[in-house]
Amino acid sequence: MTKILLAQGGGPTAVINQSLVGAILAARKFPNVDKVYGAVHGVRGIIDQNLVDLGAESAADLELVAATPSSALGSTRDKPDEKYCMEILRVAQAHGIGNFFYIGGNDSADSVRIISEQARALRYPLTCIHIPKTIDNDLTVNDHTPGYGSAARFVVQAFMGINLDNAALPGVYIGVVMGRNAGFLTASSALAKQHLDDGPHAVYLPERAFDAEKFLAEVKANMERHGRCIVAVSEGITDARGVPVAQGLMAKATKDPHGNLELGGGALGDFLGKLVKDRLGIKRVRSDTFGYLQRAFAGVVSDVDQREARAAGEKAVEFAMADARSGTVTIHRSREYAVDYKLSALEDVAAKTKVMPDAFIAASGNQVTEAFHAYARPLLGSDMPRVHRLRQEPVVKV
Amino acid sequence: MTKILLAQGGGPTAVINQSLVGAILAARKFPNVDKVYGAVHGVRGIIDQNLVDLGAESAADLELVAATPSSALGSTRDKPDEKYCMEILRVAQAHGIGNFFYIGGNDSADSVRIISEQARALRYPLTCIHIPKTIDNDLTVNDHTPGYGSAARFVVQAFMGINLDNAALPGVYIGVVMGRNAGFLTASSALAKQHLDDGPHAVYLPERAFDAEKFLAEVKANMERHGRCIVAVSEGITDARGVPVAQGLMAKATKDPHGNLELGGGALGDFLGKLVKDRLGIKRVRSDTFGYLQRAFAGVVSDVDQREARAAGEKAVEFAMADARSGTVTIHRSREYAVDYKLSALEDVAAKTKVMPDAFIAASGNQVTEAFHAYARPLLGSDMPRVHRLRQEPVVKV
Repeated sequence: MTKILLAQGGGPTAVINQSLVGAILAARKFPNVDKVYGAVHGVRGIIDQNLVDLGAESAADLELVAATPSSALGSTRDKPDEKYCMEILRVAQAHGIGNFFYIGGNDSADSVRIISEQARALRYPLTCIHIPKTIDNDLTVNDHTPGYGSAARFVVQAFMGINLDNAALPGVYIGVVMGRNAGFLTASSALAKQHLDDGPHAVYLPERAFDAEKFLAEVKANMERHGRCIVAVSEGITDARGVPVAQGLMAKATKDPHGNLELGGGALGDFLGKLVKDRLGIKRVRSDTFGYLQRAFAGVVSDVDQREARAAGEKAVEFAMADARSGTVTIHRSREYAVDYKLSALEDVAAKTKVMPDAFIAASGNQVTEAFHAYARPLLGSDMPRVHRLRQEPVVKV
Repeated sequence: MTKILLAQGGGPTAVINQSLVGAILAARKFPNVDKVYGAVHGVRGIIDQNLVDLGAESAADLELVAATPSSALGSTRDKPDEKYCMEILRVAQAHGIGNFFYIGGNDSADSVRIISEQARALRYPLTCIHIPKTIDNDLTVNDHTPGYGSAARFVVQAFMGINLDNAALPGVYIGVVMGRNAGFLTASSALAKQHLDDGPHAVYLPERAFDAEKFLAEVKANMERHGRCIVAVSEGITDARGVPVAQGLMAKATKDPHGNLELGGGALGDFLGKLVKDRLGIKRVRSDTFGYLQRAFAGVVSDVDQREARAAGEKAVEFAMADARSGTVTIHRSREYAVDYKLSALEDVAAKTKVMPDAFIAASGNQVTEAFHAYARPLLGSDMPRVHRLRQEPVVKV
């Protein structure tokens, strides 16, 4: 008989509970699984022994939780060091846990790696499996990660509306999108375009150095061409020296002797908006920072993402039960469009970051390629909204 | 025979094209309607004679446009004075227009009022009808206005997700919602609550003076009670002297001798977040300004709002054809839940603002009443998402 411990780490997503429920329900099919525990608030809940018995949850209730965004067990930003991991292992041992599953990003994968190595060193039989999750889509080995498709869908639907709003009341619009190191989420904004003149007209990614002069020239060119300009900007854009633009703004604000204006969430968008206003003399300039709406908005979710997150949780349990080998579940694209799941080595994903490959970024540096469109399109899921225009047959002036 | 001219003004909504299409299709049922023209970019399109022949649009295409957010004819922020209105009238006369319909808010209603009075003074037979539209829900006479239900639905779905995100990673979250003078949209955030401890835990409306000390005390009390706190704040909150808090911040920023930090879209949320951090010493404080996503997000719309916006457009044409009287279409709640449409006097709506009645605001000033819930609930439409929790049966510590 064996006991299973599940936990969720890092930023919530729209589908992280699918992976949780996938693992719980898969575990119920194995008669040698005695108990399925959940840790409340990730690894923090383990060291606090804040555990819950997931056997008390009915399958019907679990299905409702699976369809609910954000981490139902709670999450944590704790990044365990060796000592912290040893404490996790001690609690796992005390409860007779044989299988540990941690749903999270590359930091969570690293915690799983450390715990797995410590368990091996102590000859404690603990199968440790990392289940991928991140809206940033920045995990190595994986073609893409659960959570990304739904967040991308939110960004696309947002820019579809923004494009129409900006067409109705023309001007410059700057939308700041999450993704500190990888531009996948910002790049997805390009999928909002249906017509050639639709926005976003430029996309600024952390993978390419941000040049304010080039940015201004591009805004100007689009204003001349379309009478309006929408740009999508990653919160993680950096200057030529690799310093995040937002960080530069914050450092400047901290140094302000008045000391009463710290630049926070909206600062990057506000700064770029002011730059456009001041330098190009454009009156109507608006910026929004999409913020936390992107990762857990209720009711906007990709069904493809849901199914894959569910499968990643199921596969994790099946891999563990099959040969008690630790690892990370990875997603691989096999056909157009289908995926396979593998158990990969933890060290190949742990603490590593994948960024947008060059093939996804146009030579100009501020557009994505058709290869990126082909990559991202199936991840958005079914029944994407479509928008429509009037024909606008002109009436002869009198 | 008569010619019809349609235009859309002010900020776009998710359903303003329903009213446009409702009017166009209704006009096709009247054999005495010769032509249906649309003005591109509102009243600006009239004086520029930038008109389109809406007879060229097929009914099937119009249905697709009706389901598309934002103003398909384009909009304008122009607020016509007497001279501007006289120019509109001259163009209408030149094209032989007999009926003018303007879909917009209280400013648009005022333009319609002026044009209608000028036509009467000149004995030019022009029936002028205003069709209501505003996400702010601030039109007098109307029980509520087309556009509000869909924007409220967006705000509710956003806070449903934010509540779960904040429960997973506890801290303080400040969400800044549109609505400069009326708190209806911010108040709708309360409908995101399913459980007693769900956020938003406090709602700050422009109808009540914002007191920073009271705000801090309330955040502190919620942190002690729930270990977390979510607040919804209207962008239009004012201090005890009636000065908008955001305006105070902007004035301060303009005076900054460094001159390089103008406070823009995200400033109010960032300011309140910093206040909480500095004064309460809370580490995890986040703020988002929902911005333009609220009014034209593709794929989030209330079906009730869609139907009512459509009907308002249809009724406008029917009223005009019935007795050639100018006025504004107003929406009245008749039963739980049904509405009636009337033609009301333009001067009762034009340039007037409705705010949240006292019966909708709790004595504390930072909560809404059950009466508001009953008022707003049917406007959100069908199939609202529901979220679910785990039972979380504790495991005995060892």
